[in-house]
Parts: sequence; structure tokens; C-alpha cells
Amino acid sequence: MISTRKELADLLVDHGFWIPAGVPGLWGRTDRFEAIVRGFDGLIVEIARESGAERIEFPPVVSRDVIRQTGYMESFPELCGSIHSYREHCGRHLDLIDRVEEGGDWSPFLEQMELTLCPAACYPLYPAATGVLPEGGRCFDLSSYVFRAEPSDDPARMQAFRQRENVCMAGPEAVSDWRDEWSDRGLDLLRGLDLPATRVVAGDPFFGRGGKMLVANQIAQKLKFEVVVPVTSSEEPTAVCSFNYHEDKFGSAFDIRTSDGSIAHTACVGFGLERVTLALIATHGPKVAAWPAAVREALSL
Amino acid sequence: MISTRKELADLLVDHGFWIPAGVPGLWGRTDRFEAIVRGFDGLIVEIARESGAERIEFPPVVSRDVIRQTGYMESFPELCGSIHSYREHCGRHLDLIDRVEEGGDWSPFLEQMELTLCPAACYPLYPAATGVLPEGGRCFDLSSYVFRAEPSDDPARMQAFRQRENVCMAGPEAVSDWRDEWSDRGLDLLRGLDLPATRVVAGDPFFGRGGKMLVANQIAQKLKFEVVVPVTSSEEPTAVCSFNYHEDKFGSAFDIRTSDGSIAHTACVGFGLERVTLALIATHGPKVAAWPAAVREALSL
Repeated sequence: MISTRKELADLLVDHGFWIPAGVPGLWGRTDRFEAIVRGFDGLIVEIARESGAERIEFPPVVSRDVIRQTGYMESFPELCGSIHSYREHCGRHLDLIDRVEEGGDWSPFLEQMELTLCPAACYPLYPAATGVLPEGGRCFDLSSYVFRAEPSDDPARMQAFRQRENVCMAGPEAVSDWRDEWSDRGLDLLRGLDLPATRVVAGDPFFGRGGKMLVANQIAQKLKFEVVVPVTSSEEPTAVCSFNYHEDKFGSAFDIRTSDGSIAHTACVGFGLERVTLALIATHGPKVAAWPAAVREALSL
Repeated sequence: MISTRKELADLLVDHGFWIPAGVPGLWGRTDRFEAIVRGFDGLIVEIARESGAERIEFPPVVSRDVIRQTGYMESFPELCGSIHSYREHCGRHLDLIDRVEEGGDWSPFLEQMELTLCPAACYPLYPAATGVLPEGGRCFDLSSYVFRAEPSDDPARMQAFRQRENVCMAGPEAVSDWRDEWSDRGLDLLRGLDLPATRVVAGDPFFGRGGKMLVANQIAQKLKFEVVVPVTSSEEPTAVCSFNYHEDKFGSAFDIRTSDGSIAHTACVGFGLERVTLALIATHGPKVAAWPAAVREALSL
């Protein structure tokens, strides 16, 4: 029994999982929700540790240069979160205050900083990996809040949410195999939590007319898989994780090389921690104590 | 033996704690650093749980209205992180791309969103608490990445960092006592980790000429205490936590009332998780295995 977006949002608030934060796509979460997030996140961290990934954390903001070097503003301009602040040369401070109080846009008094919000947990990693990889490549386990400027009434489409991402950098075959293995693993893990999970070939929401060609190519080459679970619609299930083969895109942009000197290929697998949690609540209901015992045990609930 | 800022930053990178992220005040952290963060954070979470605080998490961004309603742009305009994105009416997408590639400021093609970065973990909480408190008030345990637009070469002055905050909302006396108790507790906790911690009366970096009066008043009334520990300077030790009595500032701004109908007072206590970790490394050295056994045990290291 699938709820509508509004019904799910109301249920999350009424059952003490979420707290409205005054802006579409922005929510506070109680420990009732966070305990589920921690439980699922712990499962991925454990798998990543066993697979020998190096665990690294970056803050939720990233150098503006990374956005420039990856062509993010070409592909996803409407999702970006550029960061701006006041500097004394921007205008009189009293005029700024008046503008703020009027309730409008105060952009004219602000200057763009050298930072943007992080669009995916792996973005800060690539510039830090410039150079030659050890033989066999490197794998990483990352987690970060990420930002997408897309206000929505869909509880599963948040403007700020957490990704647990694993990244592999190596030669093309090793990277492609790694991505496929993680895709099997992710599907098994979610089905093991009694979620009606399906794997699909997917594309990114590239911007504009040129974007249509990019996504057609991405789908034709099966560069992206997603695992989807019904959350607020059976016809349009929600992607809860994605498995992306970037070919040499990031290796070229940041000069990451394999031990034989060729440009490294990369792939990332990302789990949307809030989305997985929503899928669990939508599937098993709002009373966590009534979830299947094996699911609760797996999630340490 | 205290290092300079440069020496400490180099030591953190050389000993595998930090990864440069290309912008002053922005760093990636390895699990060697994060294990210390988790250990200390766990101690505060435990104290908060025992004290009956409700644990809530907010994302690192907050409604722009909260910034407006709290007068943040009057007091701290140069620290704000306003969030801007591209919308089709902002100008031609191809012109945006040209501007991005030129390497300059692309503000003219962006529009201010209804969101800013969160300046302190407690900001999103106050609007969520509008209404009447139960008798005895309410206490909360929060954690969030916070943002301050102040690029610096001081490793202890990051643009994005994590706060573990506790907040109390109640009548004036209860709130003031709560703040003082946490201040004793925080000092004991840090000294228990063999840190040379001192409590001082402190002020916030209010902006401009009017700000000088605000901070003088804040200090005269002892509204803010900090616990400081030498990190890169013995003469100017670093604040690792702060204990702030807001009087009725947030209660008035968001109409939070006590059970007898008066405007609630509030206080917050915030621990800078990275700063505490830096203080531990600066005090006990970069080899965690050689730290005092009791300190490692307390931090589960």
C-alpha cells in the first residue's frame, strides 16, 4: 500500500520521524529516523571495510574549481549550490540590512566565494587523487551531505541529503568489474532487508538539448545502474542507490594515472541514506517495532 | 611544544590525518582523524542522553528566513554562506558556461535560493520549537556541519566544521543554571582528556562599530563562556567549546513560550569536534598509540 507524497510526508511528521524545516525539500530528523540511517550506513561501512576501501570524509562544500573542472555547470546548472557572502566592498552594510529586512533577494550585496555545495560525495576526492595510483588501483569509502537546488514536495527528493559512496580508481576492466560487483551486492543487501528492489539501467538529468544526447549515450552504454524501490509510487519507483561508471572523465580532468601511466578510469556507487530509510518505512510501515525481526536485527534496531 | 599554524597543518597531512582540499580552511580527513572525532562525539552524546536531551539532526543548510529573523546579516554578514543557483530566466546557459570557463565570478547568472548554509547547529531548531514548552522546558542534542566564510591559514579556523550542540529552552533561571552546569561538565571532560583547558568569559565577533558595543555588553553580562586550549599558540589559545546564554533572543524571534506563557529563554553549548581533535593531537602528539592509556580508553581508540 503506497502513500502519496503528501501522505508520506504527513506520516513521517505524525510518527515522529521528521520535523518540518520551513523550505520544500528540507527536513529535520529525530533519532527515531536517524537510528535507521545509522543502521543501514553501518552495513555499507562494514562491506567497504572488508573490501579494503580507505575511509575518508570531506565537508559538504567543495572548491569552486572542482565544479569548473568537471563541467558541472554545463550538465547540471539548475542543481548547483554556489556560496556567496558579504564583503565590505560589496556595498554599505546598512543598505544590505535594509534589503534583507525587505524580504527580497540580497544577491547584489554578496560576492561569490571560492566554494560551492558538494553535489556528490565523491567530487572532492578526485582532485586529491591527482598522480599515479598504486598497482591494482585504489578504493575509497566516503560519506557526505550533498546538495541539489531542486525544491520538491516529494519527501524522497530532498535539497540536502546524505550519500554513502564508494569509489574505485584503476584500469578500465577492474573498474567496470568493481562497479558490477557492487551493483550485485547493493541489490542483494536491499532485498535482504525485504525491500522490493529492482535494478534498472538509468541516466542522469543532464541539462538542455545537448543533455538529451548525453543521457541517450549514457543509457545505450549502460554507464549507470540504479536500484529502485517503490516509495510514493509503484509506477515510478524511487532510486535508492546508483552505480556509475565514469570511464576516464575524472581521470582526465584531474590527471589520475594507473601504475602503467595510462589515464585511470573511475566508478562510484552511492547509497542515498535518507531514501533507503524512506523505502524501509514505506515498505515495512511506520512502527519500527513491528518490522520483520531479521530486518531489525540487520539494522541493529 | 606548540607548533605554528603551518607546522600543524603540515603535521596533519604528513601523519595521515588530513587531505588538502584546495581552498584555505577546507580539509578532507582520513579515518585516523575521524576515529578521534567519533570517540569524543560519543562522549557528548552519552552525557546528553543521560541528561534526557532529545536528539535531532538537521541538514547543513537552513531556511533564509531564519537568517533574516535572527538578524544574522546585521551581526555576522561576512561569515554568511548564501546559496545561489542557475534558473533559466537568469540568462543564456551558453553565456553562463563561457563565464565559468573564463575563471571569474559567475554571480550574474545565479539567483539566490531560499536557503543559506547553517551558521550554528542550533539555528534550525528554534523555528521548529515555536509554541508552548512543556513544564520544565525542553533540552535537545544536535549535530551539524556549520559554515563560516572566513578563509584562514589556521588549521583550527575552518570554513566548514562540525558542532555537537546541546540546547535548553525554559525559564531564565533554569536556562542559566543549565548553561553553567554544562560549562562545568565541559571543562571537566576536557581536563579529563589531559588537555590544558581553561574557562574564559568570551564575546562573539559582531560586525562593525555597533558590534563593538554588543560584544562589550555580552562580556560584561557574562553571556558567553569558552573553554580554550593552546593549539597553535600559547598566548592565544583556541576555543574548543562555548556556552552561550541567549536570554530571550530566540524565544522572542520565534515565539517560544514557557508553560506559564512567558517568552522562553534559551542557551546552547557547542563543542567544535575538529577543534577538540586538534587540541588532542597538539597536546598528546601525532602518534595516537602513544597517547596516555586513559585518554585512548575514554575515546575508544
